[in-house]
Amino acid sequence: MASAAPEAEQEQVVNPWEVSAGKGGIDYDKLVDQFGCQRLDAAIIGRIGRLTGRAPHRFLRRGLFFAHRDLNEILDLYEKGEKFYLYTGRGPSSEALHLGHLVPFMFTKYLQDAFKVPLVIQLTDDEKFLWKNLTVEESKRLARENAKDIIACGFDIERTFIFSDFNFVGGAFYENMVKVARCVTYNKVVGIFGFTPEDHIGKSSFPPVQAVPSFPSSFPHLFPGNDQLRCLIPCAIDQDPYFRMTRDVAPRIGYQKPSLIESRFFPALQGENTKMSASDPNSAIYVTDTNKEIKTKVNKYAFSGGQDSVELHRKLGANLEVDVSIKWLNFFLEDDDELENIKKEYKEGKLLTGEVKQILIKVLSEMVERHKRARAQVTEEMVDAFMARRPLPNMFG
Amino acid sequence: MASAAPEAEQEQVVNPWEVSAGKGGIDYDKLVDQFGCQRLDAAIIGRIGRLTGRAPHRFLRRGLFFAHRDLNEILDLYEKGEKFYLYTGRGPSSEALHLGHLVPFMFTKYLQDAFKVPLVIQLTDDEKFLWKNLTVEESKRLARENAKDIIACGFDIERTFIFSDFNFVGGAFYENMVKVARCVTYNKVVGIFGFTPEDHIGKSSFPPVQAVPSFPSSFPHLFPGNDQLRCLIPCAIDQDPYFRMTRDVAPRIGYQKPSLIESRFFPALQGENTKMSASDPNSAIYVTDTNKEIKTKVNKYAFSGGQDSVELHRKLGANLEVDVSIKWLNFFLEDDDELENIKKEYKEGKLLTGEVKQILIKVLSEMVERHKRARAQVTEEMVDAFMARRPLPNMFG
Repeated sequence: MASAAPEAEQEQVVNPWEVSAGKGGIDYDKLVDQFGCQRLDAAIIGRIGRLTGRAPHRFLRRGLFFAHRDLNEILDLYEKGEKFYLYTGRGPSSEALHLGHLVPFMFTKYLQDAFKVPLVIQLTDDEKFLWKNLTVEESKRLARENAKDIIACGFDIERTFIFSDFNFVGGAFYENMVKVARCVTYNKVVGIFGFTPEDHIGKSSFPPVQAVPSFPSSFPHLFPGNDQLRCLIPCAIDQDPYFRMTRDVAPRIGYQKPSLIESRFFPALQGENTKMSASDPNSAIYVTDTNKEIKTKVNKYAFSGGQDSVELHRKLGANLEVDVSIKWLNFFLEDDDELENIKKEYKEGKLLTGEVKQILIKVLSEMVERHKRARAQVTEEMVDAFMARRPLPNMFG
Repeated sequence: MASAAPEAEQEQVVNPWEVSAGKGGIDYDKLVDQFGCQRLDAAIIGRIGRLTGRAPHRFLRRGLFFAHRDLNEILDLYEKGEKFYLYTGRGPSSEALHLGHLVPFMFTKYLQDAFKVPLVIQLTDDEKFLWKNLTVEESKRLARENAKDIIACGFDIERTFIFSDFNFVGGAFYENMVKVARCVTYNKVVGIFGFTPEDHIGKSSFPPVQAVPSFPSSFPHLFPGNDQLRCLIPCAIDQDPYFRMTRDVAPRIGYQKPSLIESRFFPALQGENTKMSASDPNSAIYVTDTNKEIKTKVNKYAFSGGQDSVELHRKLGANLEVDVSIKWLNFFLEDDDELENIKKEYKEGKLLTGEVKQILIKVLSEMVERHKRARAQVTEEMVDAFMARRPLPNMFG
């Protein structure tokens, strides 16, 4: 913090394996420009509401999903009665998910329900094997455990196919991987992902694996003869590099470019500039945490935008820009009016940090309880059912 | 030829995609030292004869398979009653095989018959898609057509599994690919295979695909619970780079190193220093050539070591070192005494080039005829049967 290093050295880095903010937190505007994606504005959010006949998800209303690529094209087609499918995924590197991991799945469930479309969920156990010091067996086991948490988010089994790469790579999927690989130079992946020559070849081999679920022909059991079906990918903005690459390749191999809808990062308890880290369990709330753990973590670690003394706080109010409890309520408190009221009173110093934290603890505890109950209902048979390579006859129904 | 370029510029290059001889042809001794493999000497050839109870194949007797890696280990184990399996393959880039393509398969059939061991044959249709300007469909079609020629070599369906990568990559095979990839840096494949940063990532992704048939666990339908079964790979020396890499990785992932038995190159009609080329049909005899084509090609293109005039030839005799007819008879004329006699008389000028060519034409015509008859017997059902993912209950019988 006291470093005299020039500002240039603190430039933000955002790629699938590293997210580090520059001075003052992640500059999302800069990211949009750098990556070349589009801003998700009020007009397009309003349009989603009209087309689906329901209020846009709070993640949309509050700008938490903030960027997109060609989402309007998907909506144009949808308006004409054409369908699309959703693709999202997860790299299963830990036993239990934290709340940040749930964000894309909560949002994807909303999209699936609102648009009534099929969904493929990729578990990149191969990626985690390649990047982490795991065995193949452990990567596969984590994929299956994570699948249970994903299923607990409430996806519709009639519309959802979950697969692990170690189990599913092959056939049409592998053909598409090889087609993509032929179109991407090593220089290109170095430019996009920052690999070095000392990195193992598994790293430069992997991007096609995450690319090809964007193409319906990778799933012949789901979309036979429907090779031009459009794909929409809800994901965090750090996954954009994969899909820049994918969109670049798609027309060269006769496929449609996938569209994207991209979220901001879910902040660590310690604040926007830090990253939730698997090696620091106090940086995140896990879906396995007890009410007591949630209470302790929030009270102890959630970075406060309040003032140092009650007197000063009553006088100056809280700085909402840095307050993590407010940021988290922004994600998880459904009621817009209640949220606005909390923000207003906190900003004016009427609410104290401790009081806001109590509200957050209640919201999180209820959410985690609900998740635990749903997770407990997920049997091995249900995992098998979601992961079965099967047609989904009612997926557009 | 009249170039004043220093000799260093003509250094030989041997890798899976390029074979170019230095001045004076391929220096196989140098290759053995460069690659770090072992010479296949009379002692080990004699041992093969004793262990199998049959005369070593002419390719062994005549030094055409000339190098190996850890073949003695395989023989030690075999002597103690332990089994191994054979692995060879082909990159299906052309419709019809030429005689050079048959060499490893003829030899592999001999090994299968002599040692009574199972065999896996990999058709690298993905490789050919990545390196040649083919569609996936065309690569797969060529793989299947080539499988017919391979089956026509007489492999035992009770001991042989033929697979195409596009059809077979996945599951345990893919797990092994990813395990290998994690152990090999990009720098390493650049060093071994000479890839450049402008090459597409399909190239640096491919070596693990050719590596993993060396590991029995890649074939759970064949070798369940037999992960330490040894593998012997008969191949031409240009494939050695793949298996240097494989042998380097094997112990790091808990597997046995494959052993190798490696052949010289089958020379083009135009001579040892030229390469048989798919773009020059006159450089090779194809298994689809008619008797007339064989006759014409041999008479017109087979490089002669004979003298310019009959008088000079009678006086000086032929230079066997450069004579292609002799080189080819060395590969395909079974009778050692007859071959020695031809060489002696040709060297002494008693036989003329035209006469030696007649002998070669007869040998080749019979061989091609035999192959055509066998190929005509190969039905689609037989291809399906050889390529079926099935246990081989009698493979060690």
